[in-house]
Amino acid sequence: MELHPRVKPHLSEIERIMQDELGKEEPRIYGMLAPFLKRGGKRIRPALCLLSCGAVGGKYEDVLQPAAIIELFHNFTLVHDDIEDDSQFRRGEPTLHVSYGIPIALNSGDALYTLLWNKLVSLRLPPSRLVKLEQLYAASFKRVVDGQGLELAWIKEGRFDVSEEDYLAMIYGKTSALMGLSCEAGAMIAGGGKRLRSALRDYGEKIGAAFQIQDDVLNLTGDFEKYKKEIGGDITEGKRTFMVVHCLARAGEKDKQRLTAILSSHSKEKADIDEAVGILKASGSIDYARKKAEKLVKDAKKRIGSLKDGDDKTNLLAIADYVVNREA
Amino acid sequence: MELHPRVKPHLSEIERIMQDELGKEEPRIYGMLAPFLKRGGKRIRPALCLLSCGAVGGKYEDVLQPAAIIELFHNFTLVHDDIEDDSQFRRGEPTLHVSYGIPIALNSGDALYTLLWNKLVSLRLPPSRLVKLEQLYAASFKRVVDGQGLELAWIKEGRFDVSEEDYLAMIYGKTSALMGLSCEAGAMIAGGGKRLRSALRDYGEKIGAAFQIQDDVLNLTGDFEKYKKEIGGDITEGKRTFMVVHCLARAGEKDKQRLTAILSSHSKEKADIDEAVGILKASGSIDYARKKAEKLVKDAKKRIGSLKDGDDKTNLLAIADYVVNREA
Repeated sequence: MELHPRVKPHLSEIERIMQDELGKEEPRIYGMLAPFLKRGGKRIRPALCLLSCGAVGGKYEDVLQPAAIIELFHNFTLVHDDIEDDSQFRRGEPTLHVSYGIPIALNSGDALYTLLWNKLVSLRLPPSRLVKLEQLYAASFKRVVDGQGLELAWIKEGRFDVSEEDYLAMIYGKTSALMGLSCEAGAMIAGGGKRLRSALRDYGEKIGAAFQIQDDVLNLTGDFEKYKKEIGGDITEGKRTFMVVHCLARAGEKDKQRLTAILSSHSKEKADIDEAVGILKASGSIDYARKKAEKLVKDAKKRIGSLKDGDDKTNLLAIADYVVNREA
Repeated sequence: MELHPRVKPHLSEIERIMQDELGKEEPRIYGMLAPFLKRGGKRIRPALCLLSCGAVGGKYEDVLQPAAIIELFHNFTLVHDDIEDDSQFRRGEPTLHVSYGIPIALNSGDALYTLLWNKLVSLRLPPSRLVKLEQLYAASFKRVVDGQGLELAWIKEGRFDVSEEDYLAMIYGKTSALMGLSCEAGAMIAGGGKRLRSALRDYGEKIGAAFQIQDDVLNLTGDFEKYKKEIGGDITEGKRTFMVVHCLARAGEKDKQRLTAILSSHSKEKADIDEAVGILKASGSIDYARKKAEKLVKDAKKRIGSLKDGDDKTNLLAIADYVVNREA
């Protein structure tokens, strides 16, 4: 993800804000969160927030705190999602519940979520603007949590009748809502009007959906050294990914039965995972997913076509391409 | 808990608000929460909020939503605490993670927390007053989560050098903060001045601490038919309760060793639990805890002594007594 040099120091500043915030708190509760955040991550959400603000004529300085809050929320969801999915690795290192046990990891997630709300309600903005921003954040957070809940419910209920539309509705919550928020918050704080805010929100949501589909693809076909999560983890977790949904809608009876059997078994066996990947490949589902992600990116770029030309717009377009070209 | 007849319909209205709120949402995520809330509970926090508002000259109608939000937060903490403590029963029925599994229960807790934030930032108050109220809520929520985190850390680290002061600091977060918030929010919305708000907050925090110590006592000596949680659960969970802290500071070496061994073992055996209770009784720790709770209640009542006499004040004094006299 190549960003123009003006952005980098501001991303570093956001990093510092997050570390400072955690460093002030009780180490037995927040101590594991600072290194968890230091593991890195793409910081795509803060970048979107900065660039959207800039693209609308605002100053990066004005969105450092709001962007940090969004990244903190993202990390909160990672801690809890890893428990829910029983994921073993995050950014190449053991997940928090693997290192500290579920009770402590769960509470630290709650602590992080509560901390970021404390930050949000204390932002230095005129109260009427602050309340509007809070409402935007709260509504977006809700879509993220609800999206995750829907995915868990499908697995729990053993449902395999998930349509492409259902899947897209789910990831427009789980993943798109926060990227859309990043863009809209940046535009809002920059004082952007309704039309600009809506264009950037849509752009963010579309690349969010593309990001999630690409993530589903990488989870199956990626390289652990780059992806830094267990490959095939989605198969073990029984996730209804875009490829699974596509495949089940068109594979033959035998393949469908095998795929649903493997997904329902929560198997960690390499042979099972390889077989599932083979079925998904043979049905053309992985290619179909890649194409869908590319289409979403194309639409996202179109949505911000009317923005004023400049570095910020160029970077937003580059992020859109990065989302589908990334290997990690 | 006998409250004057004027309070009851408003508590029912708060019940309705909470059920309506949950009823509007996706049943696969929020569906388990409505019956969880319907299991009852004492609704001591909403009652405190109504009465504090009334005692300062406000109208009950003005705090229905703020009181409902506090009760929703309390229930959110119950869902997550039950996972963290691996508690089996809540209000006489299986805990949510026992019924639905950890992933779904965890996410539903997050959903409830996110929902109540959506409600809070949308309260119909002038923005500058709303932001102040949000800051009060956020700071109190943080103390609750941090208190819970501290208790978990003590267990995880195998620490038995917890002083009475440490214990009190922990429960002033875990339990007192929300009762204090209930009172202060009521007073704040009623337009009460600093002195009144502070008196009611202190009263709430003190009865919160007394409530928790009484809860520790009931957990050991209570009757399952009334208490509706597993008796001795705190022993199995290895909790550093007020009695444990007192006992370890004065019991003989042999008793201390046995008690720490049982607490560290997370045993569910009745013989072990009975032995631990026997040690706590013999050291006078249970009596000491009861006396401490009574002292806190006495201080709490004194703190609101200067409130204008009336039904609301009478009820607040009665709640203080109830906190230590209750069997459930």
